[in-house]
Amino acid sequence: MNDRLVTATRAILLVEDNPADMRLVVEALKEGKVQSELHWAQDGKEALDYLHRRGEHRNAARPALILLDLNLPRVDGREVLSQIKADMLLRRIPVVVLTTSRAESDIVQSYELHANCYINKYPDNSDSFLDVILSIARFWLGLVTLPPPPDE
Amino acid sequence: MNDRLVTATRAILLVEDNPADMRLVVEALKEGKVQSELHWAQDGKEALDYLHRRGEHRNAARPALILLDLNLPRVDGREVLSQIKADMLLRRIPVVVLTTSRAESDIVQSYELHANCYINKYPDNSDSFLDVILSIARFWLGLVTLPPPPDE
Repeated sequence: MNDRLVTATRAILLVEDNPADMRLVVEALKEGKVQSELHWAQDGKEALDYLHRRGEHRNAARPALILLDLNLPRVDGREVLSQIKADMLLRRIPVVVLTTSRAESDIVQSYELHANCYINKYPDNSDSFLDVILSIARFWLGLVTLPPPPDE
Repeated sequence: MNDRLVTATRAILLVEDNPADMRLVVEALKEGKVQSELHWAQDGKEALDYLHRRGEHRNAARPALILLDLNLPRVDGREVLSQIKADMLLRRIPVVVLTTSRAESDIVQSYELHANCYINKYPDNSDSFLDVILSIARFWLGLVTLPPPPDE
């Protein structure tokens, strides 16, 4: 049972409206030789449709990890986070908030809504966005024990 | 405001009944030159007393991070996790579950109770417990943006 979790290629859902940031995530995962299947939702509504397998997403893989920007078109990232963590089926999926916002209200609200962690795209140290993604992938896909996807 | 969060020495609450594991955590933090103030609770009841500032803990520092074993005397780690995440004041503090348990029920229950992440003390790869602690410290204290402690 555990073997399956360790060796399976894990799906990551990236919720990000900036195509340049999406491309950097793809590059970082390739550079880090991270075995994963990246799904890209360009706004909050698309992320929720994907997670709830609505419309064209009816065969969507359950992601093992969600990378969530906060400032998103259509449905805001805070609302996406709130809906994921209020859903009995989806709540177990770790959500990494990945944002440029340094507002204390965003940090506190995200943790109170049960974001699993909050990370700045451009941290105070000299880490580039690419380094940040690599560190996230190594920690969450290499060290952490992830839950099995819901309903599988 | 952010400067304070970045430069302050952060308190870590380690909830662990095994003194040998506690000493390994101390050693790892020293070896990694991690600036932190480690507080040790030997069982679940002491952890809750510390967090709620009861009795001798009335001046306890609010931890920036909690490392929580699951199998604990007096009050079980699952109950400690559940109480922390149900508390409006404490819920924002990240809780890293750090355990030898590989039971799928423990993994799923911990995430559903809003553990921030679940880590095996002795993972499948060759990482030692010391490596695991160092990776946790680097990720949570080096990369993640932590919330300000509650009521400060």
